[in-house]
Amino acid sequence: MNNELLNTIKKLSQSEGYKDVCHKQGKNDPMPSIDVLKEIVQLSRSILFPGYFGDAGVNNNTMLYHIGVNIDRLHLLLSQQIKAGMCFNSSSDESTACNEIDNKSKDIATAFVTQLPDIREKLHTDVIAAYNGDPAAKSFGEVIFCYPSIRAISNYRIAHALLQLDVPLIPRIITEMAHSETGIDIHPGATIGSYFTIDHGTGVVIGETAIIGTNVKMYQGVTLGAKSFPLDADGNPIKGISRHPRIGDNVIIYSNSTILGTIKVGDGAVIGGNLWIDTDVPAGAKLAQKKIDKSFGDK
Amino acid sequence: MNNELLNTIKKLSQSEGYKDVCHKQGKNDPMPSIDVLKEIVQLSRSILFPGYFGDAGVNNNTMLYHIGVNIDRLHLLLSQQIKAGMCFNSSSDESTACNEIDNKSKDIATAFVTQLPDIREKLHTDVIAAYNGDPAAKSFGEVIFCYPSIRAISNYRIAHALLQLDVPLIPRIITEMAHSETGIDIHPGATIGSYFTIDHGTGVVIGETAIIGTNVKMYQGVTLGAKSFPLDADGNPIKGISRHPRIGDNVIIYSNSTILGTIKVGDGAVIGGNLWIDTDVPAGAKLAQKKIDKSFGDK
Amino acid sequence: MNNELLNTIKKLSQSEGYKDVCHKQGKNDPMPSIDVLKEIVQLSRSILFPGYFGDAGVNNNTMLYHIGVNIDRLHLLLSQQIKAGMCFNSSSDESTACNEIDNKSKDIATAFVTQLPDIREKLHTDVIAAYNGDPAAKSFGEVIFCYPSIRAISNYRIAHALLQLDVPLIPRIITEMAHSETGIDIHPGATIGSYFTIDHGTGVVIGETAIIGTNVKMYQGVTLGAKSFPLDADGNPIKGISRHPRIGDNVIIYSNSTILGTIKVGDGAVIGGNLWIDTDVPAGAKLAQKKIDKSFGDK
Amino acid sequence: MNNELLNTIKKLSQSEGYKDVCHKQGKNDPMPSIDVLKEIVQLSRSILFPGYFGDAGVNNNTMLYHIGVNIDRLHLLLSQQIKAGMCFNSSSDESTACNEIDNKSKDIATAFVTQLPDIREKLHTDVIAAYNGDPAAKSFGEVIFCYPSIRAISNYRIAHALLQLDVPLIPRIITEMAHSETGIDIHPGATIGSYFTIDHGTGVVIGETAIIGTNVKMYQGVTLGAKSFPLDADGNPIKGISRHPRIGDNVIIYSNSTILGTIKVGDGAVIGGNLWIDTDVPAGAKLAQKKIDKSFGDK
Amino acid sequence: MNNELLNTIKKLSQSEGYKDVCHKQGKNDPMPSIDVLKEIVQLSRSILFPGYFGDAGVNNNTMLYHIGVNIDRLHLLLSQQIKAGMCFNSSSDESTACNEIDNKSKDIATAFVTQLPDIREKLHTDVIAAYNGDPAAKSFGEVIFCYPSIRAISNYRIAHALLQLDVPLIPRIITEMAHSETGIDIHPGATIGSYFTIDHGTGVVIGETAIIGTNVKMYQGVTLGAKSFPLDADGNPIKGISRHPRIGDNVIIYSNSTILGTIKVGDGAVIGGNLWIDTDVPAGAKLAQKKIDKSFGDK
Amino acid sequence: MNNELLNTIKKLSQSEGYKDVCHKQGKNDPMPSIDVLKEIVQLSRSILFPGYFGDAGVNNNTMLYHIGVNIDRLHLLLSQQIKAGMCFNSSSDESTACNEIDNKSKDIATAFVTQLPDIREKLHTDVIAAYNGDPAAKSFGEVIFCYPSIRAISNYRIAHALLQLDVPLIPRIITEMAHSETGIDIHPGATIGSYFTIDHGTGVVIGETAIIGTNVKMYQGVTLGAKSFPLDADGNPIKGISRHPRIGDNVIIYSNSTILGTIKVGDGAVIGGNLWIDTDVPAGAKLAQKKIDKSFGDK
Repeated sequence: MNNELLNTIKKLSQSEGYKDVCHKQGKNDPMPSIDVLKEIVQLSRSILFPGYFGDAGVNNNTMLYHIGVNIDRLHLLLSQQIKAGMCFNSSSDESTACNEIDNKSKDIATAFVTQLPDIREKLHTDVIAAYNGDPAAKSFGEVIFCYPSIRAISNYRIAHALLQLDVPLIPRIITEMAHSETGIDIHPGATIGSYFTIDHGTGVVIGETAIIGTNVKMYQGVTLGAKSFPLDADGNPIKGISRHPRIGDNVIIYSNSTILGTIKVGDGAVIGGNLWIDTDVPAGAKLAQKKIDKSFGDK
Repeated sequence: MNNELLNTIKKLSQSEGYKDVCHKQGKNDPMPSIDVLKEIVQLSRSILFPGYFGDAGVNNNTMLYHIGVNIDRLHLLLSQQIKAGMCFNSSSDESTACNEIDNKSKDIATAFVTQLPDIREKLHTDVIAAYNGDPAAKSFGEVIFCYPSIRAISNYRIAHALLQLDVPLIPRIITEMAHSETGIDIHPGATIGSYFTIDHGTGVVIGETAIIGTNVKMYQGVTLGAKSFPLDADGNPIKGISRHPRIGDNVIIYSNSTILGTIKVGDGAVIGGNLWIDTDVPAGAKLAQKKIDKSFGDK
Repeated sequence: MNNELLNTIKKLSQSEGYKDVCHKQGKNDPMPSIDVLKEIVQLSRSILFPGYFGDAGVNNNTMLYHIGVNIDRLHLLLSQQIKAGMCFNSSSDESTACNEIDNKSKDIATAFVTQLPDIREKLHTDVIAAYNGDPAAKSFGEVIFCYPSIRAISNYRIAHALLQLDVPLIPRIITEMAHSETGIDIHPGATIGSYFTIDHGTGVVIGETAIIGTNVKMYQGVTLGAKSFPLDADGNPIKGISRHPRIGDNVIIYSNSTILGTIKVGDGAVIGGNLWIDTDVPAGAKLAQKKIDKSFGDK
Repeated sequence: MNNELLNTIKKLSQSEGYKDVCHKQGKNDPMPSIDVLKEIVQLSRSILFPGYFGDAGVNNNTMLYHIGVNIDRLHLLLSQQIKAGMCFNSSSDESTACNEIDNKSKDIATAFVTQLPDIREKLHTDVIAAYNGDPAAKSFGEVIFCYPSIRAISNYRIAHALLQLDVPLIPRIITEMAHSETGIDIHPGATIGSYFTIDHGTGVVIGETAIIGTNVKMYQGVTLGAKSFPLDADGNPIKGISRHPRIGDNVIIYSNSTILGTIKVGDGAVIGGNLWIDTDVPAGAKLAQKKIDKSFGDK
Repeated sequence: MNNELLNTIKKLSQSEGYKDVCHKQGKNDPMPSIDVLKEIVQLSRSILFPGYFGDAGVNNNTMLYHIGVNIDRLHLLLSQQIKAGMCFNSSSDESTACNEIDNKSKDIATAFVTQLPDIREKLHTDVIAAYNGDPAAKSFGEVIFCYPSIRAISNYRIAHALLQLDVPLIPRIITEMAHSETGIDIHPGATIGSYFTIDHGTGVVIGETAIIGTNVKMYQGVTLGAKSFPLDADGNPIKGISRHPRIGDNVIIYSNSTILGTIKVGDGAVIGGNLWIDTDVPAGAKLAQKKIDKSFGDK
Repeated sequence: MNNELLNTIKKLSQSEGYKDVCHKQGKNDPMPSIDVLKEIVQLSRSILFPGYFGDAGVNNNTMLYHIGVNIDRLHLLLSQQIKAGMCFNSSSDESTACNEIDNKSKDIATAFVTQLPDIREKLHTDVIAAYNGDPAAKSFGEVIFCYPSIRAISNYRIAHALLQLDVPLIPRIITEMAHSETGIDIHPGATIGSYFTIDHGTGVVIGETAIIGTNVKMYQGVTLGAKSFPLDADGNPIKGISRHPRIGDNVIIYSNSTILGTIKVGDGAVIGGNLWIDTDVPAGAKLAQKKIDKSFGDK
């Protein structure tokens, strides 16, 4: 190890250099763990779609045992990760409040677990919607087992329930895991009705304050985004205010269209592909890109 | 474990609740395994691009041994996964037909293996096309070793061969693996000629009944999709009928364009980016988005 | 193993069949390793964002030890991978030049390590830009720990530094790793200023010769691509010449827009979504897709 | 790869050379798996000593679920391994009898599982004996969690139950796993009463036809071996006939003593260390090595 | 799953059946972890014998960093395991005393770490003794890197230091790990001087209250055991009283000899192999097994 | 991290403290790797006992491919480990002699591989001896697959061949791996004839210069050791001179006997258990421990 390396080590170890990019954790605050969150998602899938994920041999006789053990472990791991999320930004001395945080994170994990039956019911409607909306889908089983949209929507519905229980950070990590796996980026803050389906899905973005009705179908590359956002006195964006579209029931949005701002898309609207929409769309409207005028000239 | 958790376990274990989202597998039907399918793809790559994947030290003296062992293992694993795919949707009693399914899945695996020389030849043309089509490509080796399009097209060509042998489910999982890795979603049912290349690739969608000629080049975000699809008497989509474009030879399609329906794009056509095409395109045509009229006004 | 399999093995082992798709490596030239490169990226992240990646308990007392050990291992692994990259395309007899390559790859690794303080500083500006540009961002910590753009830009800045040190192949693999993880495809050859941020990011493509100023913000699906490229006398693209846009300072480019060719986008320009731009854009210009004329007719 | 290696490959591949040391398995007969047998032992320990092995958080509320899932998986894995054991030596065509073997191995696995409550009860007595017999033992928990004798005796009691159900090969592998881990070699054929304990244990050997009463204690290095064994007409040992000692109740055998042949050691006997015993020992006898006559001369 | 299995699950889940063999842990008390303890031993070896274990490339320039990081992690992991050990037998409500236990376990871990320089010095003398005592030893390096006695004595010296700091359970697990690996069973309570060596070692047992002087050498199979031990009023052994031999300085004990009870073996004594010693041995004595009288008769 | 820890780090990092227990390796000299040596042993077993180890489905059709690939990989890994062994003690500057060492280690690996057919033949005789010598052995297959003696003898025969090719360190590590797994400690320097078998085996020690004839059988705990060894002028043992017994053909040695020094045990001798032998034993002699005189008095 030569002097250049030794000097670089010194330089990188000076606190003025790293103070803004270093996480100020005490040793007993475990960071949220991507690996444990993956196991949490796997456990949830095993509970929500038994036989497809987890033990394939589960049946009417043994369902109770498997659900019992999976809930037991899910609750344990989730409590830990919720605690890790709560400590992540916390500036206070964690050890004074240790028991309090422990109990609060367990209570939240319990509250989440009690919502699993409802989440399962909603995901069932999403499976139906995916099957009905895709002629290439051969069976419900194929949709559950290998459609990326089901994975992305499952992660979203789990993350959304956690966010509503005021869990910090963890919901976002869970949807980013699906984003990386599927290219579908649904913010856990979005509100999405039943029978939701996304075909292919790569490049879909659904923003934090978007609201989506029942029986909505989207294709790849669709964005429900913010058009612009107000800045505060310091020129920084004001966090947490509504800035995304509200989509009605029974809407279809074709591939690569961008819908921006706090506009409203009415029930039953059909939005063609590759469009840029930043004004309200009435119910029942059918929008398409202007026809190309067939001027097959030189590019 | 408190009463809330115990009650949730009970609720989740009631068969009326899970019957529609639970896989009805007997214990001896292994589910298709993503991990084994990954090994199958790795083995195939080792055979198709020796030295780049698998043992880097393979040479003329040892090629026979390596190919022999890889084929031996590929055949074994593929037979098992084909069987798992065949059992996936099957409602019949698996044990009665055990030997029959075993033999059939082995025969299919054999038939697949015998096509590997042809698949290798076709992938060779895809490598040439990628190299010739990208000024950033420094060598054939770089293309083979790190271009996502080669991975997506390899998986497609493998999956397509399996689908033509009537293997259920497995081909779709193999292309979804590439979809997750590369953002390129090619349905195994599509028909794609030689010298095919996709640059960058994220967001590309090629539908189940699309047909693509020789020497076609696409950029990221291109969709060959279905415009709409007929419903049956119950309002469900009719499965399996033609609904995607037919692309001729020597066609180039630029980024983020969407080509929809059973239209025909003629030989040598050049389709610009960000277009929405749902009518036939004649041979040799060059389409571009309407020029923006430089009205640099407020957005 | 039946005759069909045995014959296929023979066919696949004939050198005329595999000669063009087989890597001609000697046994002592290890191939670049994706797994080691992943560890290299992890080590770099531990150094650049201590506490977020690597050991979460690192603090002012122990920073020196952790940086020291991480630099030590990073230098070792990077030297090996640089050597592997240099051997990848080399046709010469590797053993004659063994020591020379060893020393050269170590020197390059040292040169890279000495740039880490600068890279850390630049990434700090990117974190600030991401936080300021996204109302959904709750803290710097959340941005560092789970925003895909930070991962993609980190990999790019690492890869770019390596490429400028003339390291072959490895930089491209590092950016392709981020491409697979995030859907953001930044060529290591691109030149990108400070305070750079990409929101959501899936489908973004930034080409080899693109130049991006300071404080530029992009959304998902944006392409900075080549419009066309000159061919040499043999009809093959001429490698390495400039063919991508030059983006000024303080530019915003909205989702799914495509900017092509060696054009210039002036400082402060705002480019709306879903646009296809292939001519210069003046400073301060605000471009938007032509309004749809609200002809809500049939699609 | 030079000629010497190529020639060696040829030589090693000639069937006359390997025919006697090669296992004649068809591809569908999986070999017994050490890794799966380790999981079987782990599962059994989780059931027999809940909380110490497997999930540490198991409690009265969740015991049913954990036992249920562990039994479910134990039965599945054990059925497979029993089948693998039955196929190991079989010379017949395995595929004809596939279903028959499947069902038989499942029935045996079931019969084994139903014996687990009895095995648990017996192991409980062994724990008591170890605790009472070792002043260094601090608690039952310490004995269960870290005494090698408990591991060796657990494996023996599991293996013995399997052997009595006529399972081939698998029982021997299970006791050899304990042999490797603890240095205690108990043949699964031995018959051992309750309240059995071995202190330290390294080097203990208990032969196939040994019979041990209740409340017997042994120290390290004790052998219950065969003195000699009759040969058949061809000069080969006759398999399966009784050739090991029968030890009564409440016997103690000190370290490194060797007890050989079909002799009987009566109830309550105490056998000192480093002895070689090949004749009956009456009940209540106390044997010791002849005193050294303190002739402290040169060695 | 048939009725037999279901009934067995019920039977095994009844609390009266498992209450004596089940660990009564609350969920937040992690059990001591064999895997973490293995890492602790690895870290200790990296600190005690740098370059042989852990990073092989450590040198004068980088030693500080490596020692720093290894101590940091060792302290963290050891604190956790000490806490787990303290909770193992504890019957009190763990959560009330959580902070107190946390701090105590960290203090003990610190106290242990400060002893590492002394432990390293002592182990250095053991390496010298092993090298000098074995003509087959080729170098100090060979002794450190592959002699089982060094591993067993390292674990013992670590465990002994922990036991003297009143750490429960963990020391015993650490020596049992060496017992399983090497066949050498040294109780952490034993007191052993410098320059200690064991040749081959399998079967060696050194009891809880044994005391061994300086420069003692043992061979395989040697026992320093308890002859008998007093029972309390209930017939149970009284725990913790002295019951093993005290060995002087410069003693050699040959293979398979057994030395029992609170006897004293004087300085410089040489004890031959296969002996059973239960009375004091004077300083300088040389004991040997009685010569066999060459009566080469029938066995 | 408090001052006590920081001070300990400093103390441990001072070079005068660690200089004698630190391995002086340059970074490019990889240490011998236990994990790679385990793979080498696994590969060797796959070649020596095909079907039992490695791919279970190997058959006459595919043997050539499997042997070819296994030899190819064995040669590669072994060359590296031989090189690592040669560098281990080397004090010279490794880089000057890099190519020379590389070539030498490859040549030695080749020489080893060419001996595998002979090693296989010898191990075949050991399997026969184990089967014939143990009435509990049910088949050759059981002996090969789960008898610890076969594993220990395999490792010995491999290590012995390497030692005869002057490979340093590696042979000793290979036999120590078997020592740890089986409790059987055979020095690679020993010379052992065909048809060798060890029953149970724990505690067996066979010294560096022992010579064993054909068809010898041993039981657990047998030592072939050194009685004493001459010291040089400095009081250190003289390395490498003969100091272990020479055992003739057809000898049986029963459990826990110790045979010491350069004595000779004649052909056909039978040595009973728990004996201490340090003088020659004539051919055909049958030795037994002196009968206990049945004085069943108090211990």
